Amino acid sequence: MDSKKAVLLLSGGLDSTTLLALAVSEGRAVHALSFSYGQRHSAEVAAARKIAARYDVVQHVVTDIDLRVFGGSALTADIDVPKDERIEGRPGIPVTYVPARNTIFLSFALAWAEVLGANDIFIGINALDYSGYPDCRPEFIAAFEKMAGLATRSGVEAGGSPVRIRSPLIDLSKREIIELGLRLGVDYGLTTSCYDPAATGEACGHCDACQLRLRGFEEAGARDPARYVTGP
Amino acid sequence: MDSKKAVLLLSGGLDSTTLLALAVSEGRAVHALSFSYGQRHSAEVAAARKIAARYDVVQHVVTDIDLRVFGGSALTADIDVPKDERIEGRPGIPVTYVPARNTIFLSFALAWAEVLGANDIFIGINALDYSGYPDCRPEFIAAFEKMAGLATRSGVEAGGSPVRIRSPLIDLSKREIIELGLRLGVDYGLTTSCYDPAATGEACGHCDACQLRLRGFEEAGARDPARYVTGP
Repeated sequence: MDSKKAVLLLSGGLDSTTLLALAVSEGRAVHALSFSYGQRHSAEVAAARKIAARYDVVQHVVTDIDLRVFGGSALTADIDVPKDERIEGRPGIPVTYVPARNTIFLSFALAWAEVLGANDIFIGINALDYSGYPDCRPEFIAAFEKMAGLATRSGVEAGGSPVRIRSPLIDLSKREIIELGLRLGVDYGLTTSCYDPAATGEACGHCDACQLRLRGFEEAGARDPARYVTGP
Repeated sequence: MDSKKAVLLLSGGLDSTTLLALAVSEGRAVHALSFSYGQRHSAEVAAARKIAARYDVVQHVVTDIDLRVFGGSALTADIDVPKDERIEGRPGIPVTYVPARNTIFLSFALAWAEVLGANDIFIGINALDYSGYPDCRPEFIAAFEKMAGLATRSGVEAGGSPVRIRSPLIDLSKREIIELGLRLGVDYGLTTSCYDPAATGEACGHCDACQLRLRGFEEAGARDPARYVTGP
């Protein structure tokens, strides 16, 4: 195990970019992993490439997986992304939830961590803003970590050290994440959050992700440098 | 939840084909899932298609994932597959172990089960023959099942029922699996097990998988209908 080596799930969004800046500030040797998964917001992958280059990660792998074969989410199937809906107090799980997405992403990260001999996997999940997503909760992360320790060579062989799942943003509000990123010098103009961007790449300003992002910048007293169709 | 619906991981090998015959004999509505993952033994995918058709599964999805980007296994990277090695008492984890493979496969199955509303995921893992693979052990399956219950809508929402991971072959010897399959009428000529088949599709007869298979048939007092390069 190399305590500096880490695998980091990089979506190209605000949270995972802040996470990357945090991991780099801690001296981690980051191996960034992104997925092209038939998501509507494929602009994320282009953003992830720019961000990985900016932070000079050790390696950036973008791997294709096809979650469209299963459907079941507004982000991968032919279901409308909700616009201008109230987020607080909404019952149930949002239609933008992608079934088992974080389980799949962490499983790939686990494979790579095992091959690299990396001790840590960083994931930028957040329990507050995505309270309706079952796989964004601390108890999910704890259960995944326990399973990972039993699934892999490093968790089983003598002298091995099980992989840890690090989710330092899990309890932060969007405002706190943005404030952390601004302190770390993150250029949020590189990041993209919108679930339903225009063909030209501008964010819609009205989906859940845009609403959370815009409110976070407002609460942090900062300007969102992202480009919006109608202006922020 | 539909108690008849099940997602079944179908590799095209002897174990998963026996598993499919068992699930069908129990009246399950099987949704079979196979992966094309840069494995050397891609003949497995062709076999899986024939087997899925023979058992008239409700749906068969073959999805591409690229585990070659991570390397680390004789089955996905440029490492020689061992031949004619003693299997018993060999220390450590075999080089044919693919890091986190079963975790990745089960994660995709979990996504599909959630979309389908299926209550069960069937996986043909076996703790006896693959004692060196950490992710073939009952404790791994139990931990995955617990994690899955926290990761998904069905495990979290009121009235939901968490997915179960079914591994009925886990404690059987290869002989017992073959005997079970023969009772269920499995045509093992459709299945392929070899880690390193010839370009013409014949099994090598010498890798770990061929050795286990041939010995299993011998112990069961049956003839292996698979084609071998040098004859069985």
